[in-house]
Amino acid sequence: MALSGLYAALGLLFGAAAAFGPVPRITWEHREVQLVHFQEPEVFNYSTLLLSDDKDVLYVGAREVIFALNSVNIAEKHHELYWKVTEDKKTKCADKGKSKQMECLNYVRVLQPLNDDVLYVCGTNAFQPICDHLNLMSFELRGKNEDGKGRCPFDPAQSYTSVMVDGELYSGTSYNFLGSEPIISRNSHQSPLRTEYAIPWLNEPSFVFADVIRADQNSTEEDDDKVYFFFTEMSVEYEFVGKLMIPRISRVCKRDQGGLRTLQKKWTSFLKARLICTTPDKNLIFNIINDVFILKSPSLKEPVIYGVFTPQLNNMGLSAVCAYNLSTVEDVFAKGKYMQSATVEQSHTKWVRYNGEIPKPRPGACINKAARAANYMSSLNLPDKTLQFVKDHPLMDDSVTPIGDRPRLIKRDVRYTQIVVDRVTALNGSVYDVMFISTDKGALHKAISYENGMHIIEEIQLFPNFEPVQTLLLSSEKGKRYLYAGSNSGVVQSPIAFCDKYSTCVDCVLARDPYCAWKSHEASCINILKEDEIERDWIQNIGGDASSCPASSSIPFPPTGTSFLSCVGSDSPPSPTNTMPDVWSSTELVMA
Amino acid sequence: MALSGLYAALGLLFGAAAAFGPVPRITWEHREVQLVHFQEPEVFNYSTLLLSDDKDVLYVGAREVIFALNSVNIAEKHHELYWKVTEDKKTKCADKGKSKQMECLNYVRVLQPLNDDVLYVCGTNAFQPICDHLNLMSFELRGKNEDGKGRCPFDPAQSYTSVMVDGELYSGTSYNFLGSEPIISRNSHQSPLRTEYAIPWLNEPSFVFADVIRADQNSTEEDDDKVYFFFTEMSVEYEFVGKLMIPRISRVCKRDQGGLRTLQKKWTSFLKARLICTTPDKNLIFNIINDVFILKSPSLKEPVIYGVFTPQLNNMGLSAVCAYNLSTVEDVFAKGKYMQSATVEQSHTKWVRYNGEIPKPRPGACINKAARAANYMSSLNLPDKTLQFVKDHPLMDDSVTPIGDRPRLIKRDVRYTQIVVDRVTALNGSVYDVMFISTDKGALHKAISYENGMHIIEEIQLFPNFEPVQTLLLSSEKGKRYLYAGSNSGVVQSPIAFCDKYSTCVDCVLARDPYCAWKSHEASCINILKEDEIERDWIQNIGGDASSCPASSSIPFPPTGTSFLSCVGSDSPPSPTNTMPDVWSSTELVMA
Repeated sequence: MALSGLYAALGLLFGAAAAFGPVPRITWEHREVQLVHFQEPEVFNYSTLLLSDDKDVLYVGAREVIFALNSVNIAEKHHELYWKVTEDKKTKCADKGKSKQMECLNYVRVLQPLNDDVLYVCGTNAFQPICDHLNLMSFELRGKNEDGKGRCPFDPAQSYTSVMVDGELYSGTSYNFLGSEPIISRNSHQSPLRTEYAIPWLNEPSFVFADVIRADQNSTEEDDDKVYFFFTEMSVEYEFVGKLMIPRISRVCKRDQGGLRTLQKKWTSFLKARLICTTPDKNLIFNIINDVFILKSPSLKEPVIYGVFTPQLNNMGLSAVCAYNLSTVEDVFAKGKYMQSATVEQSHTKWVRYNGEIPKPRPGACINKAARAANYMSSLNLPDKTLQFVKDHPLMDDSVTPIGDRPRLIKRDVRYTQIVVDRVTALNGSVYDVMFISTDKGALHKAISYENGMHIIEEIQLFPNFEPVQTLLLSSEKGKRYLYAGSNSGVVQSPIAFCDKYSTCVDCVLARDPYCAWKSHEASCINILKEDEIERDWIQNIGGDASSCPASSSIPFPPTGTSFLSCVGSDSPPSPTNTMPDVWSSTELVMA
Repeated sequence: MALSGLYAALGLLFGAAAAFGPVPRITWEHREVQLVHFQEPEVFNYSTLLLSDDKDVLYVGAREVIFALNSVNIAEKHHELYWKVTEDKKTKCADKGKSKQMECLNYVRVLQPLNDDVLYVCGTNAFQPICDHLNLMSFELRGKNEDGKGRCPFDPAQSYTSVMVDGELYSGTSYNFLGSEPIISRNSHQSPLRTEYAIPWLNEPSFVFADVIRADQNSTEEDDDKVYFFFTEMSVEYEFVGKLMIPRISRVCKRDQGGLRTLQKKWTSFLKARLICTTPDKNLIFNIINDVFILKSPSLKEPVIYGVFTPQLNNMGLSAVCAYNLSTVEDVFAKGKYMQSATVEQSHTKWVRYNGEIPKPRPGACINKAARAANYMSSLNLPDKTLQFVKDHPLMDDSVTPIGDRPRLIKRDVRYTQIVVDRVTALNGSVYDVMFISTDKGALHKAISYENGMHIIEEIQLFPNFEPVQTLLLSSEKGKRYLYAGSNSGVVQSPIAFCDKYSTCVDCVLARDPYCAWKSHEASCINILKEDEIERDWIQNIGGDASSCPASSSIPFPPTGTSFLSCVGSDSPPSPTNTMPDVWSSTELVMA
């Protein structure tokens, strides 16, 4: 009776869990997969990763040290460079009330390539951020000791992001010791620019990601390259019982030079908009963005922005992935309405849609062919009216809505931290965006989404101690396809597929992994991207139909090394074959 | 390996569940408890219950029929009265596009005592609500066929609530066929009153409860009796990505006569405020109120309002109970700030705190001693300024916050529908508010809260078919302590405790049920409220310390008839004894 009660409770919990997102079809425990680890004694916070695919080097920025590792086998260390805080600085930092052992150290936060031989590197340096040039030949710092203010946070606990574009560093961080002055800036000799320090521009932001999107070279618009920033900030436009956070996408133009009088040395092209990640009924609202990956592939019509989100309100361990077309983003900034603030009854500031006349040229627009035709050759020429407007109205009223107007994935009982995406062509020519999403418990989910559904191919326990994954990096070079994950205690290198773990054709096909196919004459499950040529008799079916498998191999046996085959069906449409795993798991239970 | 994986998954799910609310210590399946059922063939929607304690009668309003049952044994039917819709009315209703089989029937929605011999009854009557007098001697209707508009909904699917106060019916419902015109009204020959039909007064409300709170007879204020209404409505003051709902408490004064010119035949005392049910960090927001129970006991300093809530946003099956002191409510209405609406940029209405001068007498206040001293003998005398103000400002800016500024209970994986509360004095003299909370799956949770914690004593499956509990009623008369629950298919009568199910002293004490104690010389677990005298050697410990139990009975064995003893600890502080159930459940698993 007690056991039947247990099963009833199990059913209840699993049922509830299944109702809110797919369960990974298979979970690989840490000991079941061969992952390559890198960690040095006494070194922590492996938070910054940079890959040099052509040199096969993975650069790792940790606390007080920078490593160069063999990216094909990260256990192999090429170089290490200790970059420590002087005892004098450490004492001064401690005098200001910071922890000498934890905070008053040099956390490496920026590792960006300046050219083939030099990296631009910054560290928190006991709350006195500095930047330097790292010579990759000698693996030594040039000793420039530039002031890192505005490029690197003072506080290792604070959010930051940066991207190097044509030798200039764009960064989102905080500008002061207290961390109270947020800034998005460009570090440039010719034209350093920054955001206004004002609530409408940035309101307690947490920066998560930045990247450049190049202008279409074939377009006659002569548009500018754009740098996008992603962050969560305090909402000014919304109110509920408490304060609300809101995910934002903001962008600046690369050719922005600032204004001549108004917005001198400030962005004239800084605009921001809400990133919506909700269900169509708007009852599940994911309003905290944790990470972004921009999928840019030559085969793509346009880049696709992937974001991982969690809710601020009522979050019982709920996460989502939303995807956005770049054209949707561009439309919001180029054609959308602006918001404006209004004072109500002398004491309340409320933000509403601005319905008045919009100055020309359009506030916040890049200098393109049309602007030049109207004789605005640079942002320095822009009229005061346009500049004053963008200074007062940096927030768009239109929102950036996700592809399909709904999340690609909603998952219960998990907090997603990072995402990378790989576009893979399956054997039948269909293209899949394979999402690798890390959790705050050291795991990785590999998932695909298709029309009306979603499948988590596998769950891999990357870190045995269940610590949060802080950084995720994908190498998609042929023959060197790896995932790198950084955490507080180390770096892990993982293959992107575990095809060889599947020992039967049915297993291999039911995994529904676009990387894997069954090679009948060798009777093995292979990674198709590792093969030189695709052969006709390989068997793969992302829909989960294993009926092409030879009869002899279709006897349902659990795959070798499987730690847990989910009892819960995925949310894919039922088919005669993909319900088989349910049968196996019951069998396993009885046999065990 | 598969089994260990299963256990890992189990642990994960249970762990997550335990983090968000206590698990019932014991679950009684429907077949394990003897409950008395009442249901008639072909009769559905047993939604309205009324108890006459002195007559031992439970009146039940269902679809097209009213029953009088023996409240001590509801299987025993005293009377039944079929109250059907005429064929003509049914046809007319169907002609308007409503379902003849489901909607065009007479759903009894109001059963209120007019006097000892007569009930005031109303039904939806095929979308033409009518009311009548039910003679309790003959159990026949008087045939008054009063128009039920404003007292009873047209649509059986719409929310409603009512309370009879000194022979006058106060109700919250909708006033038209479409259900688009909400109303809170008093049905009275002398002074019928109603709300304005305007968004600031009522904005798509869902009514859940109404009750009267009598003025303190000992007070020199000569305050009025007040009728409180509870509902969820569309918020005007808040905005997020979508529309937000908000729980409200509103009140009117019994002596309100309406205004003379302004607010003629309308409430001059209608005020409403937000009911807050959130965690202190405001990240769990429960903004839909499902039911209310007002605990009024002579032993109480002041009434306590208990509400059950669910969140609108990100609700993955999450519920909460919040409790409010009446004095907090009274302070908000008597001393709080008002809200006002303002038009921003010609097209946006925003609600903000009103900081201007407030007319005298205070808008919305009842006529009390002070008002009479200023020569306002009735609401008909009130100055236009006061009336116009309350007409425009029915919403308070101050909110009603819960006792302890946090929910009494937060529970995951459940949707609570109804609540009743019983105040019980334990053997040691401590007073406990025992909460009986029903779910949308036909279950009942019996819970107590104490400082910094909360314990669900037991879960009882009231309805075998897991249907939602629609109504819950408590009889707390000595010797007749029962719970009555109504659903779509029938009514269930349950004892309020199952002490005799515990066969050992340790079981009995670890139940931590204030109703139960161990009677050593009889070796039985008794319901202390059923006994005439309290004896010294009874053993009870609500803290869960069973060390007073005789040594012979302390061998841990699962209680008889237990279907499922939770594997998860409650959130009470660990003690040597109350962790024992964990051991049992493991033992059970192994033995099974």
